[in-house]
Amino acid sequence: MATEREEFIALCGDLKRDMLELMAREHHMPQEAIDWVGEMIDYNCLGGKLNRGISVIHCTEALAPSGMSPELKRKASILGWCIEWLQAFFLVADDIMDDSLMRRGQPCWYRRPNVKMIAINDAFLLETFVFQILKKHFRSEPCYLGLVELFHDVIYRTELGQLLDLTSQPLNAEPDLTRFTLARYQQIVRNKTAYYTFYLSVACAMLLCGVTDDDSHALAKSICVDIGEYFQIQDDFLDCYGDAAVIGKVGTDIQDNKCSWLVVQALDRATPAQREVLKQHYGKADAASIAVVKKLYEDLDLATLFHQYEDETYVKITEQIARVTIMPSAVFTMLVSKIFKRNK
Amino acid sequence: MATEREEFIALCGDLKRDMLELMAREHHMPQEAIDWVGEMIDYNCLGGKLNRGISVIHCTEALAPSGMSPELKRKASILGWCIEWLQAFFLVADDIMDDSLMRRGQPCWYRRPNVKMIAINDAFLLETFVFQILKKHFRSEPCYLGLVELFHDVIYRTELGQLLDLTSQPLNAEPDLTRFTLARYQQIVRNKTAYYTFYLSVACAMLLCGVTDDDSHALAKSICVDIGEYFQIQDDFLDCYGDAAVIGKVGTDIQDNKCSWLVVQALDRATPAQREVLKQHYGKADAASIAVVKKLYEDLDLATLFHQYEDETYVKITEQIARVTIMPSAVFTMLVSKIFKRNK
Repeated sequence: MATEREEFIALCGDLKRDMLELMAREHHMPQEAIDWVGEMIDYNCLGGKLNRGISVIHCTEALAPSGMSPELKRKASILGWCIEWLQAFFLVADDIMDDSLMRRGQPCWYRRPNVKMIAINDAFLLETFVFQILKKHFRSEPCYLGLVELFHDVIYRTELGQLLDLTSQPLNAEPDLTRFTLARYQQIVRNKTAYYTFYLSVACAMLLCGVTDDDSHALAKSICVDIGEYFQIQDDFLDCYGDAAVIGKVGTDIQDNKCSWLVVQALDRATPAQREVLKQHYGKADAASIAVVKKLYEDLDLATLFHQYEDETYVKITEQIARVTIMPSAVFTMLVSKIFKRNK
Repeated sequence: MATEREEFIALCGDLKRDMLELMAREHHMPQEAIDWVGEMIDYNCLGGKLNRGISVIHCTEALAPSGMSPELKRKASILGWCIEWLQAFFLVADDIMDDSLMRRGQPCWYRRPNVKMIAINDAFLLETFVFQILKKHFRSEPCYLGLVELFHDVIYRTELGQLLDLTSQPLNAEPDLTRFTLARYQQIVRNKTAYYTFYLSVACAMLLCGVTDDDSHALAKSICVDIGEYFQIQDDFLDCYGDAAVIGKVGTDIQDNKCSWLVVQALDRATPAQREVLKQHYGKADAASIAVVKKLYEDLDLATLFHQYEDETYVKITEQIARVTIMPSAVFTMLVSKIFKRNK
């Protein structure tokens, strides 16, 4: 029997076929364009952990008032893939903006010699397909408009986060480390990552189960955004301290002058002399500069600081979840258990 | 008293203020991010002919069953700006994909030294703002969902057209002139340009006036797509034969190896020897090759061919419009009159 994950992955193929059929039958696209899009979907939507997508199924299980029917599971799975395709849209575009090399153990889509800047239009298409999938499968459901507006809203948030991230350093000017504050860090990650990584999965399940009241959504938003911040801090830690073979890429936050949790914490603890070292070496591409920054992180014992942070945050979020009464708290404990002490 | 155009332009400022206020009040964005977006909107949404936007007002005037109230005019104008912002989204992204230099008499947004690839996220934001404007102004109207789906649909069409255009030539391989057929040309321009340039304006006005039946929309689509093809053929002609000072950019279709109406017609008429000349020189950046191609266009008398095409098409479209009975034909004559024999 297929595992839950295998079953979920098989559904992506069905959704892809739907989209390619739409291109052929309704829009009379030539075969080469259909083949292009099919390959593009496979290349960018698969190969990830699929945590966001599968979480919609688990959240729906926790929320469904009369249990999980096969039909409800299928709908939750479709929404799960909408999130995965949405993420593919973000990643294809982010990789161009960040000038990245690798993603999920393979070259970024735009790095392929026959793709290049066509990847921008491919990213748009992935976004468009999300709304086409919603239309095909949910148009006659009462939650349809709510889902469409939810995706618009989360896309908007993510783009605002990306804007903050991209403009956190002046382009073509001296790096300005004073902009790397914890407040700015939180604002970036809550918008850029937390909304689409956690709140979107929960909110899809809520709308699917008919939970539409503002209080429940505000509560879910608040908890998910805290979980999302924790998730991104793990990500920043793994970018420097993780195993590239496990993660599928080599971290480049230091040379890319990124507003990472590590540099924010380093600046918070640095002596004036250490601050000067960061100013000299952070955001430089040469191996020597990267090594100097990593040595400074070690001197400041940021790995220990991270592990303390991880333990404390786990306790705090668990307490926050324990106080939830207006919806099943399993929705949230399940999300946290998936990422606690993750190594990829 | 402000002219219609001045009044329309002033509304763009109102909509911009709404979006910046949303960023400040609801999303607590820092001032520098708000300033960035404000400048980005001004740079990319203004400076065009505004034909698409203003056409929504004129179509609504032609369609409104009980005349044009100030409130209806304002709503039509807001939808007009949604189209202009949507076009700004397409243009910002297309200019990156096409590696363009100038747009509307100024450097393309992504060419600004402090912008570069951040322009990709800016393009996304422009698209997102369209849906935020629709939500703010039409959420309680019966046409709201229809408008959202219309914009999704037109975005999808435009992206399919862009995909066809970008993949009409193999990347990193010998140019393949056999792909430049009239059939492929039509498929590109109908999807990439005609839908958002003509059908979208008409369809917005129709939905605003409560016209939702499939027959009327199919008819409008069919006529608008013909007008759009004519419009794009003019565009291709002006790219080579137009006055750069009037258009705001110097045409680059020849060196960019574009599937232009001119090269399609040239290939259709070329002797085997002339075909060989095109194969040698089309899609090459050097001035000598461009001159050879232009000389060949002259030898084939493509300018005369274009003027004949323009006159014949005008007659055909006018006849098609004359047969319209299920809606006021003024909607369409007005669109054609705006572009017949245009020089920009």
